Amino acid sequence: MSGNLYVGVDLGGTTIKAGLCDETGKLLHTYEGQTGSGRGVDAILQNIAAYVRTLVAESSYSMDQVVGIGAGLPGFLDLENGIVKFSPNVPFRNTPIKQYLEQELQKPVVINNDANVAALGEAWGGAGAGIPNAVCYTLGTGVGGGIIIEGRLYSGFSGMAGELGHMALVPDLEAIQCGCGQMGCLETVSSATGIVRMANDAVYRGDKTSLQLLDNLTAKDVFDAARAGDEVALRIVNRAAYYLGKSMTMLATIINPQRFIIGGGVSKAGEVLFRPIREYFYEHTAAAAREDVDIIPAQLGNDAGVIGAAGLVLHMQ
Amino acid sequence: MSGNLYVGVDLGGTTIKAGLCDETGKLLHTYEGQTGSGRGVDAILQNIAAYVRTLVAESSYSMDQVVGIGAGLPGFLDLENGIVKFSPNVPFRNTPIKQYLEQELQKPVVINNDANVAALGEAWGGAGAGIPNAVCYTLGTGVGGGIIIEGRLYSGFSGMAGELGHMALVPDLEAIQCGCGQMGCLETVSSATGIVRMANDAVYRGDKTSLQLLDNLTAKDVFDAARAGDEVALRIVNRAAYYLGKSMTMLATIINPQRFIIGGGVSKAGEVLFRPIREYFYEHTAAAAREDVDIIPAQLGNDAGVIGAAGLVLHMQ
Repeated sequence: MSGNLYVGVDLGGTTIKAGLCDETGKLLHTYEGQTGSGRGVDAILQNIAAYVRTLVAESSYSMDQVVGIGAGLPGFLDLENGIVKFSPNVPFRNTPIKQYLEQELQKPVVINNDANVAALGEAWGGAGAGIPNAVCYTLGTGVGGGIIIEGRLYSGFSGMAGELGHMALVPDLEAIQCGCGQMGCLETVSSATGIVRMANDAVYRGDKTSLQLLDNLTAKDVFDAARAGDEVALRIVNRAAYYLGKSMTMLATIINPQRFIIGGGVSKAGEVLFRPIREYFYEHTAAAAREDVDIIPAQLGNDAGVIGAAGLVLHMQ
Repeated sequence: MSGNLYVGVDLGGTTIKAGLCDETGKLLHTYEGQTGSGRGVDAILQNIAAYVRTLVAESSYSMDQVVGIGAGLPGFLDLENGIVKFSPNVPFRNTPIKQYLEQELQKPVVINNDANVAALGEAWGGAGAGIPNAVCYTLGTGVGGGIIIEGRLYSGFSGMAGELGHMALVPDLEAIQCGCGQMGCLETVSSATGIVRMANDAVYRGDKTSLQLLDNLTAKDVFDAARAGDEVALRIVNRAAYYLGKSMTMLATIINPQRFIIGGGVSKAGEVLFRPIREYFYEHTAAAAREDVDIIPAQLGNDAGVIGAAGLVLHMQ
């Protein structure tokens, strides 16, 4: 019952998840409650503080052992001052969450964006444990990312580091515009959204594929069809994998990580996705930047968020 | 006469340059001597040690103040063990330079490759002074690079980080093969060699350009012609700048530095090169990753190597 502990908070639009971790990133206890977005900013802040207190009270540990609290938050953040400038999912506008929680809980508080925090969780307590230099992808509706350098989450000059989904890798001739305004971002082809778009395009133009028989195509449908040998589905999966591999070759040239970790819903596709990613990477990357480098699935699932948030405390500057 | 001092060694095929720096990266004294490559590995190692001793003896400082010695070396290195595996310019083959110099000079020794070391020099004592997160380009025969993270040179898992010249950015349809074997590397278009190649191609196919009147075209000729309004030369310079800008947008998305520093012979071209780079970067980079980010020339010239080598000591892990 001794040793330092770290609290992580994963704030979503519907629920707030809080978790207590030890120094190795092991999750000791969790508590989940409603966000209460409808009741305004103050209610949400009070809920976070209350859930952290409940989390610790329910566990067999004491608040004295808690070194600090990390929070993974959706939206645009001022990391240095701990302010949520704007969030799409909760009604925060220039909300000084760090100041509020530090006053309320009398512990240091660190914040970071939820994609980066999930990456840190995987790197610290999941598929990247023991690997100081790693890159984590989250393949879902979009493509998120996080870069771990010397065991710490790297945020860059203005908190924008690790925006892997917005690497503009698709050549202009085959690029479409991304939600961010740029052309040819990785997430236009390698997210669930991108895969479904390519599948719908193929069906619409009459490509001969089993996908034609399905309504409301999902990325999982495309992976299932590819696994069953559907050539159109395979071509789509290979295209998503091609640009993921290309992004990894680019990252190997720039920051030369030891491990690439792929999480998020799309990563559950397994070998049908991982095999062509690895093939591209090992074929195109300079020998010294690919030897002993691996590309593996994430391990933590939904817990990556709270674990990574707790890890912010240990890995803050 | 008090305070810690750092020695940097810049090993070239012809000369060895040694420099003494204070804690701020200020170069206090230098000494230069022949490499003596023709006399074999032992002679070169002895020369390095002798020049370091002479450097300190000539200065008004003492060896007691020297905290350690850094060396910037050409070739493939084993950073951890301080071994030069192979070098194109000096006859080193699996040469344990760190071990030799530590024994000979009784000071800790750190090595890194010469392009990275020049980048650290600029970042520490030159155009990046006071900027913890920066990226340095060296535009010469090739395109070298170095990445500074939290004030330290970042080498990556296997010493391959910062190989900016080998970012594969040119689309396949217009790519040529790079010396490294890949297609479309940045240095195929944005190095002096790449610029001269594009100019020779233009002359050969009969493009209407003042460059037709010159023998043995150099990159400087192309920049001079572009500045004088030659449209073919301008197109070539803009192409070199376009891919440099594209690489910076990519780096902003991945590691979000505060400053890009461009050095090397080609960077002396000035505004005719810098203006289109900045235009590309500011037009294509996400607002949060471009605001307060600047793109400026290197300041140190040839001294960047010794200063950066000295800086390795201060910035080693």
